[in-house]
Amino acid sequence: MVMRAAIFNEPRSITAGERRDPSIVEPTDAIVRVVVACVCGSDLWYYRGDSPFEPGPIGHELIGVVDDVGADVRNVKKGELVICPFAFSDGTCPHCRHGITTACARGGFFPTMNGDGGQGEAVRVPLADGTLVAVPGSGHSDDMLRSLLTLSDVMGTGHHAAVSAHVGPGDVVAVVGDGAVGLCGVLAAKRLGAERIIAMSRHEDRQALARSFGATDIVAERGDDAIAKVKDMTGGVGVDATLECVGTNQAMSTALAIARPGSTVGYVGVPHGVELPVEPMFFRNVGVQGGPAPARAYIPELVDDVLESRIDPGRVLDYETDLDGIADAYAAMDERRAIKSLVRVGTV
Amino acid sequence: MVMRAAIFNEPRSITAGERRDPSIVEPTDAIVRVVVACVCGSDLWYYRGDSPFEPGPIGHELIGVVDDVGADVRNVKKGELVICPFAFSDGTCPHCRHGITTACARGGFFPTMNGDGGQGEAVRVPLADGTLVAVPGSGHSDDMLRSLLTLSDVMGTGHHAAVSAHVGPGDVVAVVGDGAVGLCGVLAAKRLGAERIIAMSRHEDRQALARSFGATDIVAERGDDAIAKVKDMTGGVGVDATLECVGTNQAMSTALAIARPGSTVGYVGVPHGVELPVEPMFFRNVGVQGGPAPARAYIPELVDDVLESRIDPGRVLDYETDLDGIADAYAAMDERRAIKSLVRVGTV
Repeated sequence: MVMRAAIFNEPRSITAGERRDPSIVEPTDAIVRVVVACVCGSDLWYYRGDSPFEPGPIGHELIGVVDDVGADVRNVKKGELVICPFAFSDGTCPHCRHGITTACARGGFFPTMNGDGGQGEAVRVPLADGTLVAVPGSGHSDDMLRSLLTLSDVMGTGHHAAVSAHVGPGDVVAVVGDGAVGLCGVLAAKRLGAERIIAMSRHEDRQALARSFGATDIVAERGDDAIAKVKDMTGGVGVDATLECVGTNQAMSTALAIARPGSTVGYVGVPHGVELPVEPMFFRNVGVQGGPAPARAYIPELVDDVLESRIDPGRVLDYETDLDGIADAYAAMDERRAIKSLVRVGTV
Repeated sequence: MVMRAAIFNEPRSITAGERRDPSIVEPTDAIVRVVVACVCGSDLWYYRGDSPFEPGPIGHELIGVVDDVGADVRNVKKGELVICPFAFSDGTCPHCRHGITTACARGGFFPTMNGDGGQGEAVRVPLADGTLVAVPGSGHSDDMLRSLLTLSDVMGTGHHAAVSAHVGPGDVVAVVGDGAVGLCGVLAAKRLGAERIIAMSRHEDRQALARSFGATDIVAERGDDAIAKVKDMTGGVGVDATLECVGTNQAMSTALAIARPGSTVGYVGVPHGVELPVEPMFFRNVGVQGGPAPARAYIPELVDDVLESRIDPGRVLDYETDLDGIADAYAAMDERRAIKSLVRVGTV
């Protein structure tokens, strides 16, 4: 049996191809038929050739329907709609119990460590009991499915930036980066009670979405001009919490400079050329905290807000296609025609 | 009028000399007659020639009696015993209100920015209302005066490491560094509810003091051996909070490696050659937070514990002399004959 899936051939070449249909390997596995998947900003590092990637399946953000479960799986069953976070984890090891599921001793990452990519018709999900979260209810609208999909990575990642930056009620928050993660960071900061949210964005469509997610101020400048503007907006003090959602050295430098003394830069952009300058960080008492988001750990607290429409992170998905259109799903994000690309694969 | 004070001549030459008696310059100043002062681990960087220092007065940890106040001073009055933290601050600017008094826009550091060193008969204290804390009561014992003295820097700094590392009840904590700051870090971690405290120390006398401050385990190894031992002691997980109280790259590397994913290294040792390796920090979700301790902000919460003998950080002062013995006060710490040197200057 074969299935269709996105295949990374080489930088700038990702096409729909055929793969062997996944099947249960371990008794703790589940097979999930993908309903909707999406393209991650981190996939673009591979697409652009900025990070190495082995030819083969790609993608790690998906929701789907359980098609089969191994003998030891107890928490999900065939036919259930599930959210599959971008890393699998057992949910029981010390790291998982501390909420850092991305450090699970038995865990790993899609697509390289399970054999299938998220952008395909089906995936084998190791450690299904720890990894998958069944979505209650049925007949969810398409908008709802889009928002549920973001809990597999991008919304959990924006939330992780906000949690890592210790965003709290009444805070003045700055978000560096207006990609899908940064926009979800705005939403997460708002949800955590931030009073003023400065979104750093140069693109009008993203500025508008940031505002509708809760941004109160927009800074379109970059580099030293952006730093000067945020300092000016905060009476020279800097912000109470900073979310770095890009992963470049310029973004981190800006984030560190606008953070007020005593505050933390929560960073979730995979670092590419980032240097952490210890002396200014130390003498200004500005910390950094972050890493790969434990998206799985955050799903329980975020899913209720999605299901009750208190947050609608699915709005970051402003482009859609199917597996036949996968090449343009990447190109659209690379060319900034899209904030984030949805890939329709199956049905609930 | 002249007074006696320790004078930094050049590396390895600090002697008692004469200085003009300080007097009120600004209406917000106070003059404090020093009772007891001490030598800081950070003074040793200058003593050893590892950091530049201008010839002149030195020292920044003291308690004393108010001798004179400027026309605008309201919070302290002549004759009061006061704790003078190592930085002066107005107590009213946004940074002070956020608790980061070492970032005060109008503030500064002893001894370079006030004209006098802490290791002398008297100091001019700028912004006295924001800076000084009057000690209630009278007739304090010598042991009590020693512990009050530590609130000017070393105990506040150990506490800052623990606060920056987010030490909380039930935590497993590691303290890298067995100098006076590290030992105060042990005491601070215990005070904040840590359940298990691993003190990394090679010296028997310091191990004993660490244990009496609350350390439950001692690791005498360094480098990779220390990392392996702490990992082994924690079931491979690492610790919930790490205090880096040295400032060298080896100490930071050890601290980052033993921190469990999702935790923070609180660092207070002035960085000398420290590099922050962003990729392992990011992929392990280990953060860093710290800097010059806002000792002033911590005095109110620590002074009650000192006055009621719940903590006795003055025990880190295991060597004492007077201004005539200042050269050996430094040499004793440099040669590790002393954990920390007390300098008796005046009387209450």
